[in-house]
Amino acid sequence: MSTTLRVAVLGANGRIGSEAVRAVEAADDMELVAALGRGDKLETLVDTGAQVAVELTTPTAVMGNLDFLVRHGIHAVVGTTGWTDDRLAQLETVLAGSPKTGVLIAPNFSIGAVLTMKFAQAAARYFESAEVVELHHPNKADAPSGTAARTAQLIAAARADAGSPPQPDATVTALDGARGADIDGVRVHSVRLRGLLAHQEVLLGGEGETLTIRHDSLHHSSFMPGILLGVRRVVRAPGLTFGLEHFLDLNLPD
Amino acid sequence: MSTTLRVAVLGANGRIGSEAVRAVEAADDMELVAALGRGDKLETLVDTGAQVAVELTTPTAVMGNLDFLVRHGIHAVVGTTGWTDDRLAQLETVLAGSPKTGVLIAPNFSIGAVLTMKFAQAAARYFESAEVVELHHPNKADAPSGTAARTAQLIAAARADAGSPPQPDATVTALDGARGADIDGVRVHSVRLRGLLAHQEVLLGGEGETLTIRHDSLHHSSFMPGILLGVRRVVRAPGLTFGLEHFLDLNLPD
Amino acid sequence: MSTTLRVAVLGANGRIGSEAVRAVEAADDMELVAALGRGDKLETLVDTGAQVAVELTTPTAVMGNLDFLVRHGIHAVVGTTGWTDDRLAQLETVLAGSPKTGVLIAPNFSIGAVLTMKFAQAAARYFESAEVVELHHPNKADAPSGTAARTAQLIAAARADAGSPPQPDATVTALDGARGADIDGVRVHSVRLRGLLAHQEVLLGGEGETLTIRHDSLHHSSFMPGILLGVRRVVRAPGLTFGLEHFLDLNLPD
Amino acid sequence: MSTTLRVAVLGANGRIGSEAVRAVEAADDMELVAALGRGDKLETLVDTGAQVAVELTTPTAVMGNLDFLVRHGIHAVVGTTGWTDDRLAQLETVLAGSPKTGVLIAPNFSIGAVLTMKFAQAAARYFESAEVVELHHPNKADAPSGTAARTAQLIAAARADAGSPPQPDATVTALDGARGADIDGVRVHSVRLRGLLAHQEVLLGGEGETLTIRHDSLHHSSFMPGILLGVRRVVRAPGLTFGLEHFLDLNLPD
Repeated sequence: MSTTLRVAVLGANGRIGSEAVRAVEAADDMELVAALGRGDKLETLVDTGAQVAVELTTPTAVMGNLDFLVRHGIHAVVGTTGWTDDRLAQLETVLAGSPKTGVLIAPNFSIGAVLTMKFAQAAARYFESAEVVELHHPNKADAPSGTAARTAQLIAAARADAGSPPQPDATVTALDGARGADIDGVRVHSVRLRGLLAHQEVLLGGEGETLTIRHDSLHHSSFMPGILLGVRRVVRAPGLTFGLEHFLDLNLPD
Repeated sequence: MSTTLRVAVLGANGRIGSEAVRAVEAADDMELVAALGRGDKLETLVDTGAQVAVELTTPTAVMGNLDFLVRHGIHAVVGTTGWTDDRLAQLETVLAGSPKTGVLIAPNFSIGAVLTMKFAQAAARYFESAEVVELHHPNKADAPSGTAARTAQLIAAARADAGSPPQPDATVTALDGARGADIDGVRVHSVRLRGLLAHQEVLLGGEGETLTIRHDSLHHSSFMPGILLGVRRVVRAPGLTFGLEHFLDLNLPD
Repeated sequence: MSTTLRVAVLGANGRIGSEAVRAVEAADDMELVAALGRGDKLETLVDTGAQVAVELTTPTAVMGNLDFLVRHGIHAVVGTTGWTDDRLAQLETVLAGSPKTGVLIAPNFSIGAVLTMKFAQAAARYFESAEVVELHHPNKADAPSGTAARTAQLIAAARADAGSPPQPDATVTALDGARGADIDGVRVHSVRLRGLLAHQEVLLGGEGETLTIRHDSLHHSSFMPGILLGVRRVVRAPGLTFGLEHFLDLNLPD
Repeated sequence: MSTTLRVAVLGANGRIGSEAVRAVEAADDMELVAALGRGDKLETLVDTGAQVAVELTTPTAVMGNLDFLVRHGIHAVVGTTGWTDDRLAQLETVLAGSPKTGVLIAPNFSIGAVLTMKFAQAAARYFESAEVVELHHPNKADAPSGTAARTAQLIAAARADAGSPPQPDATVTALDGARGADIDGVRVHSVRLRGLLAHQEVLLGGEGETLTIRHDSLHHSSFMPGILLGVRRVVRAPGLTFGLEHFLDLNLPD
């Protein structure tokens, strides 16, 4: 008996969408049954027997698409952004009417980025000091990156949980900005450099040693393994899952 | 009621031992009750009411010391090396006669080194490629380091568990040694450089991204936080524990 | 009087060639006057008044193209490979008949790669230890990379010039390959990892300190600044120049 | 005929001074003829025939010591700080009366730190972007470090010389401090982390590539090779030399 998954892609003509089409086609355990762009009919998904849909459209289109998918029992892996508490509550209501259907929403499908955050969080309590350096191309509009800000918050929360004291820092005189941005007591530094794409380094330091966790993203194809993993897992995860980390096996082995 | 632990150090005059004496003295929740060197009487430990002993002597002395400690219900944190299956079995027998006493034996007390191994192990299944680069001072006699070899084995085992295919490698022509040592299919590279101490980098790569976990050990004082953590935890861990990782809380939070 | 350079590209339809066309068009001080592909007539270069030609064709075509260019007084910047002593001698003969014409041949147009080699060479005499780690995608056929091998040779030569003793290395027991390939006494390590492109790290170590020079190449567009620099400089450099480094101002300022 | 240099150390009981005593003793081409501490008589230097004195005392003592040394024709290598334009002018006057005597004053004797600055300066004109990240132990009082500030100034000056435009940076919204301190248009970031000593990274980026120059200082013994190099060279460099870089051979070979 075949275990091939019947997969559709919504938003198939976008930059990430077209990459997802190729990734599904290349996966041994999946069959691409539909690749829909703007204006294509959702009914195609039912006609082709899609089991999972990868949703990579726009904040405007995503709620309508998910409503259709969930009501037809088609699982969804969602990369589209713009999620608010209101929207998530609305989606939960739809899911309540189709209790076997699963939806994964992930702000970041890069497995490396997700692992960096989880490892930083797990290690934070064991070190006196922790800072984050993120490095991006110079066309980026915000500093620090959302991922770096989130990482700093997770580190700060883990330190608080463990009862860690404030970080040691004897700085008396400093040029404005030298010590970075302060996010819940964790310093974050943003480098902008031509030639870079998206990189992040978490530095943890204790007596006589440091631990550095670095993620380098060199191409948006880095989202594909995470999307495929989401497709494989969402069929066994009814209800709403927020964040790819819940589908990663991170119970560290002994 | 005070929770101050009464701690002794055996091998208190050695390089690590003398550092351990200072670390115990500096810890708010511990009291140093004895610091024994070669020739000092073990009975002192009973007289001073030691609850935990840090054992940092020699392979020759360690078995006799542990026999005394366990029979007197004194927990032990052991950094002395030279453990074989025979010796461990012998220790288990002694422990069977004192079921409330705990002994922690750790090949590496650096929390950073232990976390590097655990994170590498947890991440390995999610990446196509994994290699290890270790960098040490040029007075080191073996290559690769024991820690790097162990890390490669853990990565290889995690890949096998997950059913990962062999690593991609199109090398056709190579200078002898260029691609490093092959440990269970994981390549390990050893750099020897004046000015370095002990450093290790685990490189994991997938489509469009890489994850790097790096540990830098700059001083043997890096063992102290791990030793103190061992002291605090061993009193609640009867029986034999092998490896500091068992005392680290690595169930990654959601 | 305008200083705009009239530039042609040969091999304009190739991967690097088409990028060169765009780079010349985007340069304020250049005008693209011809973009020739296979089968196009070289006479176009004369008709359009090309002053410099960027030669990015094939080893088969390059000698004929350069013969035409030099005889017509058109300077050339050459990225095509396959140069032997015979071919270089043949080109020198052609150049002797047109003493005002300049030809730059460069094995590597990446300014970062060239600087990495020069800095390694300049620093080598001041450190006891030096090793090279190069990291590439796993589709690469050779190990180490040509650039890494060349870098090791330059380091070895600089050490010999300075009368440096052999590098310190107390390794007694080693797994096969752990210490890398030995190129003139300099160890070179080759990492192959999915997600990487082309990266090189030169590690130099002395008493209490290390100096690391790292080049990361993330896209072949990194050749363009070097090609444009070659175009600007070759018009003032009659005769044959081999290697972009001769056009870089590296007399380090005081 | 022997070429052994007769060397004295002033400030021989200080942390750096005692290290210098050992370094001179260990050097094959030097003989330690005097090691003076506070209160010792300078006449000893004449009696022992010292040719070069390593001056590692205090800003209070240094001017008197140098006056004695220069008037007796003893060359000096000076690590003591506190130099102002006034003091340097005063020293030049003394040197005018002893035209064969050489004095080297160096703010930094680490060869790696000096090379990092020189390489950053030489490379700066070839890249669109340049930033500096310095990382130190958390007991440091100032941010950024003096070396990082100086490096940024040198990069800015090299860019100005080359007519480079301002660095690209599309940042619109930023947390306070995220983009670091601005030194003449070059961003500098200061990390403070337990476990670190003194580290600096210069990041240079252009189209499709980055060049990173990193200096790690792990022990103050890193000053010794630079001090010994100063001793060897100052005997052939009459007058005042400010900065170790003038004694490094940095005319990059072809």
